[in-house]
Amino acid sequence: MFKSKIDVCSRDTDGLGHVNNTSLPIWFETARNPLYKIFNPDMKLRPDSWNIIMVHLSVDYLDQIYYGYEVEIRTYVSKIGNSSFTVYQEAWQNGVKKATGEVVLVYFDFENQKSMRIPDDIRKDLSEHLL
Amino acid sequence: MFKSKIDVCSRDTDGLGHVNNTSLPIWFETARNPLYKIFNPDMKLRPDSWNIIMVHLSVDYLDQIYYGYEVEIRTYVSKIGNSSFTVYQEAWQNGVKKATGEVVLVYFDFENQKSMRIPDDIRKDLSEHLL
Amino acid sequence: MFKSKIDVCSRDTDGLGHVNNTSLPIWFETARNPLYKIFNPDMKLRPDSWNIIMVHLSVDYLDQIYYGYEVEIRTYVSKIGNSSFTVYQEAWQNGVKKATGEVVLVYFDFENQKSMRIPDDIRKDLSEHLL
Amino acid sequence: MFKSKIDVCSRDTDGLGHVNNTSLPIWFETARNPLYKIFNPDMKLRPDSWNIIMVHLSVDYLDQIYYGYEVEIRTYVSKIGNSSFTVYQEAWQNGVKKATGEVVLVYFDFENQKSMRIPDDIRKDLSEHLL
Repeated sequence: MFKSKIDVCSRDTDGLGHVNNTSLPIWFETARNPLYKIFNPDMKLRPDSWNIIMVHLSVDYLDQIYYGYEVEIRTYVSKIGNSSFTVYQEAWQNGVKKATGEVVLVYFDFENQKSMRIPDDIRKDLSEHLL
Repeated sequence: MFKSKIDVCSRDTDGLGHVNNTSLPIWFETARNPLYKIFNPDMKLRPDSWNIIMVHLSVDYLDQIYYGYEVEIRTYVSKIGNSSFTVYQEAWQNGVKKATGEVVLVYFDFENQKSMRIPDDIRKDLSEHLL
Repeated sequence: MFKSKIDVCSRDTDGLGHVNNTSLPIWFETARNPLYKIFNPDMKLRPDSWNIIMVHLSVDYLDQIYYGYEVEIRTYVSKIGNSSFTVYQEAWQNGVKKATGEVVLVYFDFENQKSMRIPDDIRKDLSEHLL
Repeated sequence: MFKSKIDVCSRDTDGLGHVNNTSLPIWFETARNPLYKIFNPDMKLRPDSWNIIMVHLSVDYLDQIYYGYEVEIRTYVSKIGNSSFTVYQEAWQNGVKKATGEVVLVYFDFENQKSMRIPDDIRKDLSEHLL
């Protein structure tokens, strides 16, 4: 499991005085950086180097999140398939679980535009973060 | 069904040369404005006036989206429950369906922080946009 | 002069009930698309093709902008230098000029990471949009 | 001076493989949180409580910023006027100053929509962060 801290920005809020629904997918994406580093140790976000693509995202909004208090994102691997894997994430604020999310990512060859089997050494590293 | 045009911004792309996964939830949120207007004719996005809150979001990424071509979002109501309703959306670019999304929204009293039954006149208006 | 319409999204607002200061640079960037097309007719936003880089941005916030009303961005070229040019922009809502902005952009070779003289045919096209 | 760490998100980059110009105003806004706390100890971002509004923003882009390396924002107060004050900020990555920015903020009564003189106790706290 990885833990990341989010410093809530005024931009993350909306006219209702709470954090806007669109901020959660961005926070979860930011918090997946350590997972991306397992696949891309040099973190080169370029088509000739990067190897992950997203195919599915879901978020459940459990409670409202507010400006002024740090948010903690907890990131777990929940499933490792042949060429895809699933990431489960939680957003916590003031000791309360405020939102959960899940994304399905595919190990992908951008140059040839096709999915690939996740290599064994990466599987091993991923499995250390299994829920 | 509502149709909205999205003018893709450089900010919507990422280092992989395609549109980043986090742009879709924002485009879909923007394209729900006409639906929000059914519930809030004066569009006052304030806690003492607004009456919708999101509880669930999902996006399926079918194909990559690129900068330089307009995106069209098609927005449908897919289900009307007691206090909640579901919106189904599609993102099209160059005649290809690139992504689909679904959100569950709840008719909500922000002052008292509780859900309410969707009134009949709103149900009638929503039903005109049923999938 | 180019005119663009912005459909204000709930994400663009903040807890103060108005549009957040960070939305203006994004709206102005989106509205510069037609200018970018003069330099990049195929709109390929890639290091081996694109030819503009930003060196300066400023925004003056004249009046608050709200959700629920369309925003119009007016985009002018205000100065054409040797390798750089300046873009002046205005954001209007309900007939009121709400914000102005200026950016300095440089004609740039990303492969060799150096600025270049703006070609004459592009100068001619730019000059049609001079303030 | 305040120091903040930014975890660069894929969303912050664009098709050119670097960080998009629109990310800097957002990072600088996030990094002003400790300054905002001087004015608003309870950090209630609501019209009946908050007391700062932005009137001017500028950013100078000195060098390209990349994904994969942490960014540090350094935040200073550069001028304290009667009702306004100026914040100067720098973005550093890998020991290089990549961008600088300046914003002018006004001490503001949102209920009555008018500027106010900055109180002496706040002036004293601000002056501890003078450049």
